[in-house]
Amino acid sequence: MSALSQSPYDAGLGKNPANYVPLTPLSFIDRSAYVYPDRIAIIHGARRYTWQEYARRSRRLASALRTLGVGRNDTVAVVLSNTPEMLECNFGVPACGAVLNTINTRLDAETIAFILNHGEARVLITDREFSRTVGPAVELAQRQGLVVIDVDDSEYLGAGERIGSVEYEAFLDGGQPDFEFEHPADEWNAISLNYTSGTTGNPKGVVYHHRGAYLNALSNIVSWGMPPHAVYLWTLPMFHCNGWCFAWTMAANAGVNVCLRKVDPALIFAAIREHRVTHYCGAPIVHAMLANAPEAMRAGIEHKVFGLVAAAPPPASMIEGMARIGFDITHVYGLTETYGPAAVCAKHDEWAELPLAQQVALNGRQGVCYHTQEGMTVLDPDTMTPVPRDNQTMGEVMFRGNIVMKGYLKNEKASAEAFRGGWYHTGDLAVMQADGYVKIKDRSKDVIISGGENISSIEVEDAIYKHPAVLAVAVVAMPDAKWGEAPCAYIELKDGVTLTAEDMLGHCREHLAGFKMPRRIVFAPLPKTSTGKIQKFVLRAQAGATDAIE
Amino acid sequence: MSALSQSPYDAGLGKNPANYVPLTPLSFIDRSAYVYPDRIAIIHGARRYTWQEYARRSRRLASALRTLGVGRNDTVAVVLSNTPEMLECNFGVPACGAVLNTINTRLDAETIAFILNHGEARVLITDREFSRTVGPAVELAQRQGLVVIDVDDSEYLGAGERIGSVEYEAFLDGGQPDFEFEHPADEWNAISLNYTSGTTGNPKGVVYHHRGAYLNALSNIVSWGMPPHAVYLWTLPMFHCNGWCFAWTMAANAGVNVCLRKVDPALIFAAIREHRVTHYCGAPIVHAMLANAPEAMRAGIEHKVFGLVAAAPPPASMIEGMARIGFDITHVYGLTETYGPAAVCAKHDEWAELPLAQQVALNGRQGVCYHTQEGMTVLDPDTMTPVPRDNQTMGEVMFRGNIVMKGYLKNEKASAEAFRGGWYHTGDLAVMQADGYVKIKDRSKDVIISGGENISSIEVEDAIYKHPAVLAVAVVAMPDAKWGEAPCAYIELKDGVTLTAEDMLGHCREHLAGFKMPRRIVFAPLPKTSTGKIQKFVLRAQAGATDAIE
Repeated sequence: MSALSQSPYDAGLGKNPANYVPLTPLSFIDRSAYVYPDRIAIIHGARRYTWQEYARRSRRLASALRTLGVGRNDTVAVVLSNTPEMLECNFGVPACGAVLNTINTRLDAETIAFILNHGEARVLITDREFSRTVGPAVELAQRQGLVVIDVDDSEYLGAGERIGSVEYEAFLDGGQPDFEFEHPADEWNAISLNYTSGTTGNPKGVVYHHRGAYLNALSNIVSWGMPPHAVYLWTLPMFHCNGWCFAWTMAANAGVNVCLRKVDPALIFAAIREHRVTHYCGAPIVHAMLANAPEAMRAGIEHKVFGLVAAAPPPASMIEGMARIGFDITHVYGLTETYGPAAVCAKHDEWAELPLAQQVALNGRQGVCYHTQEGMTVLDPDTMTPVPRDNQTMGEVMFRGNIVMKGYLKNEKASAEAFRGGWYHTGDLAVMQADGYVKIKDRSKDVIISGGENISSIEVEDAIYKHPAVLAVAVVAMPDAKWGEAPCAYIELKDGVTLTAEDMLGHCREHLAGFKMPRRIVFAPLPKTSTGKIQKFVLRAQAGATDAIE
Repeated sequence: MSALSQSPYDAGLGKNPANYVPLTPLSFIDRSAYVYPDRIAIIHGARRYTWQEYARRSRRLASALRTLGVGRNDTVAVVLSNTPEMLECNFGVPACGAVLNTINTRLDAETIAFILNHGEARVLITDREFSRTVGPAVELAQRQGLVVIDVDDSEYLGAGERIGSVEYEAFLDGGQPDFEFEHPADEWNAISLNYTSGTTGNPKGVVYHHRGAYLNALSNIVSWGMPPHAVYLWTLPMFHCNGWCFAWTMAANAGVNVCLRKVDPALIFAAIREHRVTHYCGAPIVHAMLANAPEAMRAGIEHKVFGLVAAAPPPASMIEGMARIGFDITHVYGLTETYGPAAVCAKHDEWAELPLAQQVALNGRQGVCYHTQEGMTVLDPDTMTPVPRDNQTMGEVMFRGNIVMKGYLKNEKASAEAFRGGWYHTGDLAVMQADGYVKIKDRSKDVIISGGENISSIEVEDAIYKHPAVLAVAVVAMPDAKWGEAPCAYIELKDGVTLTAEDMLGHCREHLAGFKMPRRIVFAPLPKTSTGKIQKFVLRAQAGATDAIE
């Protein structure tokens, strides 16, 4: 462009160190440690850390990692429970330029070994509790030079051995508490690596950047309406989508992180009562456990508690149950690929005056974009055109914006496939309702195709959930000689209740069209992931479905 | 970098339309119009606009501007009151790629003409009320092809003529309500141009970018702890630092903008009562007017009201007054160059238990960084080293981060000067207190140098403000044959109160060291800018100060 045609707005107004700093959530802990050094940041059993202590321990960690030669783009893998060490890794690891890879603590040794090698881990920080799988995983992985650091948590007294070369606290002692956080030179730099649970083939490594982590940390506050200094209970595993970015959110919020090693209603209610917990997140099963817990457990809890529910469409019974115990639940939606929550079923004041059943239906939708996401829609995946707002036409939920992953690590094919047409393809099938809210009908692979008709497994599940005896249900396809596939329902009943398959079929007939009726009913505990997601692929295998070997 | 040495994190994980979208506050109004189409967004007298209507009117504006050939980097200047049209300009102008230049409505014709020419305005949107100065300004400016659009507000019945070629509503009628907002290709693109009031020489044009506007819009929510759907009263002129980014904030918040043409306690309390206003911002004088208004005006207001105060250090009497009437005031600090507020005197719970005088002292400080600003500190401007936290050593307040301007338009010299050493230099002199909070002592040019001693004009003002009869005070330097300079105090008393200079000197002797005592006291109304900032340069001229001709 010639000097003559250049706009004054494009001349002499460039970036400089005073007016441009790459976005990173490291800024948030620095700020809270500076502004509120003596405020409690972490509660874990008898342990307490202030924001200053939290920041100093994170700086020690960054500094100690640096002495191992760990730096930009090096992977630090962790197999940790929701402990202070896990929180510290959310800052200490990126603060030396490295990438945090939080590994699901319930994975088997083979999968952990795969992840360590695929993610090219240089350091592994692991909690003694998980040594039975992590020990063999390290053996299997055979990674040259992998440094293994043990966390031996004072709050964990169970089985398990130290398997590493150094204990975490001793390792921290070698680091400098005044080490300066290394901010990324580019906000697009990787901050974390999160493997999808992968019901098909090997898990894929989802890469987050500093920019997205920063923006979603703020959006959790703004989209949820979280006030400053919230008391946040860690019911959600931090290895799940990086804890939905809430370690970073709580640093921006200058609130309290209440750690929790085990999702157990008695422990949760005790923490809510003792620490006046105001906020928590979890899969539907976590909330359902609270709603169904004995009333005595809730004694003495008078303050308002706010929960986010996601990871699976919340059944009506759960939403009703939470309303009954007075918890304020907001439904969010997202995937590992979208930094956790990237959509929220934003409430409207007037909904509060509707009958509960309608409220439940409205609040159970996946909703609309998070504040820092740019687009969420339902498109025909072939033509990439939006479906009409008719609550009928199925399409695929798609996202675009700044809280969509960089891509899959070392898997350009999968990245390109996920991003085709300029949108991230979720694989979730949904309709668009009249008010522009998205309602998921099913995962692509969960649709049951029976006699040429699509049956939404969620619709069948919702009908079954309406029965008061049901704690959890999963409906999957089973092979059917005549129809190709047919619905098979696995049902977990509440404690002390009995029910026959005939009772349940009678109930279903009141709620479902004939072709959607389950052809088989099995009463049994459901297999779940550590985040409470029902493992349909296990049930599909049991049901002998054709895709069971996928 | 060779393929061998490239990190997997740097390969195949680039930006694409699905995972990267430039930040812009246009996203916020799009979201609120989508999610809450029928929620009230704007109240102005008898007029009401929903979020959908607000967005559609903004789209019409963008579309109509486009038909004039207005596009990227074109300047659209406005001389508008706090009306719906002004709000619409905050979205409609950037939505066609143009730059919004909000001009102070109280400027004289010469200055407005200077701004129109310096900013190279292509379009001017102006309210009939200001035609007496804007008409001559347009004449003076002689800008070829300038299109002048009149706003003839139904809520304004006073004097003034239409001076343009088209009326705003007719202009909107020519635009398309479904025009798609043009998002910036680069988040660094200019979004607005704000001239500093300029007590010395010509005003300088501060350029904001989309990225900063987006981030400060969110920070206003997070740093203030603003809940969703706040009801925001526009006591702060939108031409002042782009209304501190609150037009954009309220779009993210999906709240209500209550417009206000005139800062008048009766109107303000009526709006608070009628619309249940929850939030507002203003200079200390605005809050002081409310605190000193007759109690009857507050009748019927039972709900909590939250105010931000900035633009001048709040006197203790104002903070006390607001505490007395039960308003919750937070002190923020910033400049035109920092998108309005870029620091906040973040409160600590334990302060609430201190004696009021101590609370006032703590809350009256400039405080700490906003969430989306990266750094705020006090440096020796010569050595660029931080002053110690001793509450004594004076230095200059400096900022760095993403809510610092791009620079001054067509003034590379001033930009370079402002950004020297990698920090934005505010020109405000301050100390650092033990807890890391910044306390401004004076503007560089407001320090009074008397007999070689620096006297903080603010300290003298604070002493005078302690007298219950004082409504407002400004202390400036006056020439003194013996000492070089000496303090001269201009005092505006509350209605119906009388006081002698001797009374005041007696009061001052209780609070000030001898060398800091005012040498002259003048009782008179103080000259103020439209934002309530006392115009010390006018007083300096009156006092015959040596820098009065600056």
